[in-house]
Amino acid sequence: MSHPLLDQHRPLLERALDTIATRGYWSAFAESPSPKAYGEGAPEAGRAAFEAHLGKPFEIDQPGQCGWHDGETSPYGVPLGIRYPQSDPQALVQAALAAMPAWQALGAEGRVGICLESLQRLNRQSFEIAHAVMMTSGQGWMMAFQAGGPHAQDRGLEAVAYAWREMSAIPAEAVWEKPQGKHPSLVMRKHYEIVGRGVGVVIGCATFPTWNTYPGLFAALATGNPVILKPHGHVVLPAAITVRTIRAVLAENGLDPNLVTLCLPTSHEAAHALYTHPDVHSIDYTGGNVFGQWLLDHCRQAQVYAELAGVNSIVIDSTDDYAGMLRNLAFTLSLYSGQMCTTSQAIVIPAQGIDTNDGHKTFDQVGQDLAQAIERFLEKPEVAQAVLGAIQSEATLARIDQAAGGGMGRVVLAPKALHYEEFPQARTRTPALLSCDARDTAHYAQEQFGPISFLVRADDTDAALALAEDLTRTHGALTLAVYSTRDSVLDAAVRMSWRAKVALSLNLTGGVFVNQSAAFSDFHGTGGNPAANASYADSAFVANRFRVVQRRAHA
Amino acid sequence: MSHPLLDQHRPLLERALDTIATRGYWSAFAESPSPKAYGEGAPEAGRAAFEAHLGKPFEIDQPGQCGWHDGETSPYGVPLGIRYPQSDPQALVQAALAAMPAWQALGAEGRVGICLESLQRLNRQSFEIAHAVMMTSGQGWMMAFQAGGPHAQDRGLEAVAYAWREMSAIPAEAVWEKPQGKHPSLVMRKHYEIVGRGVGVVIGCATFPTWNTYPGLFAALATGNPVILKPHGHVVLPAAITVRTIRAVLAENGLDPNLVTLCLPTSHEAAHALYTHPDVHSIDYTGGNVFGQWLLDHCRQAQVYAELAGVNSIVIDSTDDYAGMLRNLAFTLSLYSGQMCTTSQAIVIPAQGIDTNDGHKTFDQVGQDLAQAIERFLEKPEVAQAVLGAIQSEATLARIDQAAGGGMGRVVLAPKALHYEEFPQARTRTPALLSCDARDTAHYAQEQFGPISFLVRADDTDAALALAEDLTRTHGALTLAVYSTRDSVLDAAVRMSWRAKVALSLNLTGGVFVNQSAAFSDFHGTGGNPAANASYADSAFVANRFRVVQRRAHA
Repeated sequence: MSHPLLDQHRPLLERALDTIATRGYWSAFAESPSPKAYGEGAPEAGRAAFEAHLGKPFEIDQPGQCGWHDGETSPYGVPLGIRYPQSDPQALVQAALAAMPAWQALGAEGRVGICLESLQRLNRQSFEIAHAVMMTSGQGWMMAFQAGGPHAQDRGLEAVAYAWREMSAIPAEAVWEKPQGKHPSLVMRKHYEIVGRGVGVVIGCATFPTWNTYPGLFAALATGNPVILKPHGHVVLPAAITVRTIRAVLAENGLDPNLVTLCLPTSHEAAHALYTHPDVHSIDYTGGNVFGQWLLDHCRQAQVYAELAGVNSIVIDSTDDYAGMLRNLAFTLSLYSGQMCTTSQAIVIPAQGIDTNDGHKTFDQVGQDLAQAIERFLEKPEVAQAVLGAIQSEATLARIDQAAGGGMGRVVLAPKALHYEEFPQARTRTPALLSCDARDTAHYAQEQFGPISFLVRADDTDAALALAEDLTRTHGALTLAVYSTRDSVLDAAVRMSWRAKVALSLNLTGGVFVNQSAAFSDFHGTGGNPAANASYADSAFVANRFRVVQRRAHA
Repeated sequence: MSHPLLDQHRPLLERALDTIATRGYWSAFAESPSPKAYGEGAPEAGRAAFEAHLGKPFEIDQPGQCGWHDGETSPYGVPLGIRYPQSDPQALVQAALAAMPAWQALGAEGRVGICLESLQRLNRQSFEIAHAVMMTSGQGWMMAFQAGGPHAQDRGLEAVAYAWREMSAIPAEAVWEKPQGKHPSLVMRKHYEIVGRGVGVVIGCATFPTWNTYPGLFAALATGNPVILKPHGHVVLPAAITVRTIRAVLAENGLDPNLVTLCLPTSHEAAHALYTHPDVHSIDYTGGNVFGQWLLDHCRQAQVYAELAGVNSIVIDSTDDYAGMLRNLAFTLSLYSGQMCTTSQAIVIPAQGIDTNDGHKTFDQVGQDLAQAIERFLEKPEVAQAVLGAIQSEATLARIDQAAGGGMGRVVLAPKALHYEEFPQARTRTPALLSCDARDTAHYAQEQFGPISFLVRADDTDAALALAEDLTRTHGALTLAVYSTRDSVLDAAVRMSWRAKVALSLNLTGGVFVNQSAAFSDFHGTGGNPAANASYADSAFVANRFRVVQRRAHA
């Protein structure tokens, strides 16, 4: 029992399966936004497709329509003016349940085939989606294309590969023949049916509306569940395009498109009623701790896969490439104005300073040199705009301004507003670099989302590692970086990373950055500290999204 | 990187891996209590080993000793008189944490090797453990040997095989090389460390002290976690022997035996402090709903794998082997006096009766015939004793007597106390068979643990299936049996089993029984209805017990 779409995309699946097992470099989808990879005219067609959405109602034919959502805004200050139909969540749940039996009957082969075809279709829309991601999240163009398009698709494919690996390990049938000595054997024929757990809700975030959404979306779908996608109210278009594309693939294959719907609740109450609905059995969520904890506390009927806030640390003990380290950190702190869940916030440095190939550097000198490296890196306006993008939310802007005013620690590098010629209304800020003592935990020891980092003075390297461990175990972290030329420090860091269960990057000085994780090779989040209770992607991310229902009878 | 014990037991592991993938018949450990399988003198030596425990303190050298536990009793009325040392749970947690790093450092290979060696050792103790299981749980001898020994070991091996499959899919290292066009590639060396989540607590039950304990015990251990085993206070010896054996294997291999400890808390408060301890990250539990729900509500720091109560149903529409069906059901209802979590409780029959190869049978006739089949099956005292065993708890005895008094429905077959010559003080009862209408939900629609079953009169077959579905979805079920000669009924039953997520047995008339599940082939529980949130054993049962912590550096 195969499926034409699985046959068609099987080389892609096989390569993904090979890569999650060997974890070398591979990207299924070209990360270069070039006509060479995407075809002549693709950039222009993608832009035109994006622009065609502006100022219009978004057409998506879902049941239970009861209003229009128009809360979307652009951090670039560009008017979007798109209205999205709102549906009664109860109607979406009913429609999802109605679509589920045929999706189950399709089997793992058919479901995975449909998912792979959907990812291919989304890949062909990468330019359109990139513009949508850029204009809603505030990402720079290149990041919006890569993280919003091919890298998000890679993460979706990765989830599908894990789902396939688990589901294909379960045989459809078996003959069980137990010898009975001189008597005839007992012979039973058994069937094993993979059954989704129920409706999956995927709650998107404002900063990575596809990258953080596709893993849960495709993991839930592939394992037999309908999905209701609830995007952030200010960042809707990338999710809306995604849902519409998958619905089209479903309909073309004779399936009920209501298996995947877009949900923009008319009120908080309506949203909460959806999340706590008894037929909702999984929730994938990326976002803040307060609402994440609400979900974990109230949605006991569902498996909740949550990526929450954290405090990511860097410990600097010593380096043999001081300039390389500073360049690397300048990029990390600048990228998307620090609005990544993986951006480092606490840069912990021994009070006595650090040894480098450029001589000993005092604590203050490291701070000044890092500030200078950031300024130099962002000197050219076109680089600054491309790397920084815009500030997604007013709340982040207010937080940066609080930091700039000295309200969080001594200001080492003051954030600046930049003027982008193309987007004169864009909300922009360069990174803020603050300095404080390890004892002054009031500000650095909680997530300060945005381009706000702290140079934290620790007694010595041991204390710096202990602080990073404590921050990670208490507040969570998706990333940890350590710089040292000493094996004993590196060993201690490795052991600490195991205890704190955080991914560790050692001595990054080149073109790999602590805040970037590569699909198929890097696990995003370990699921073992408070920043996330699951990882993108691993077996645990998929194995509990379906159940096996067996039957047996005498043969 | 291998391990001598893994090398030694690799054929066993490979066979287990093959079998969970193909799900045919296989038992790793001989289920026949014969000297041929276990060696000359094994039965006598096992009995002697069991008897040597009686009336003595059980020697197990654990930290934090603070008292003695002596609450163990035998349903056979035999004095046991064994005292077990009690340890402060906090001391056990600290000792477990101290043992954890070396266990992690051993890697999946070493951990799985130690687990396989432990299972082999336990297998050689099968006679000793069988006597311990029989005398504490009240099981008959053959069941105590099979379910308490080889079948429990099979389930433990199955969990180890799943754990190995998931862990071995993660490479220890990778080289990640990303092309950079004309520039040199980016090359990173990455390591992936499998890290247990933390201390695992396994809470045993009074009826299957090894079979329901080994899956969680070995799943947690293999994936890198220390385990604190907390047996039922009345049924300790099988767990104590198990813990001591594993501790010996650990010590012989240079590992800290405190990785696995036995916990008999001195109070409820001490037990609750253990379950909610912040370093306890998994809890495996088999038992009643009230305490299971307490664990789920209060132990939010841990993954809770719970097998709870349920109401297992049988729907009888028609049969072409009436006598075979009755014989099969008589065995099912009698085995271990119905004290299995898989025993059928609600036998739902259409009001108009059923068609059989022996003519039409009215609802009442089916009840009388089933009652007679049970009486005949238990006619010979030696059969009755072997099959029924004894009643584990006073609470079950009281429940049976309530049923016998007519307090739960019309009595079709009254339970009787039997006299076992060998065990004159044994608590015994034959099955109670009651009759009621589907509307009279007060008694049949909640778990009546023990040999209490209800003939439930439904309007017709559709109503019978709907009732079984409702019971399963509302109260949970581990098993469902359906008898019908009609394809349309069987099809409807199959679709219902998918919705209710319950394992279905169709038309069992021979030597396979709805309340028995075979390791490597039958999933025990689906994890998809209220009777259990996990299955023995599948990927979901193991995949979330460990996390992967990666590190990366420039190559």
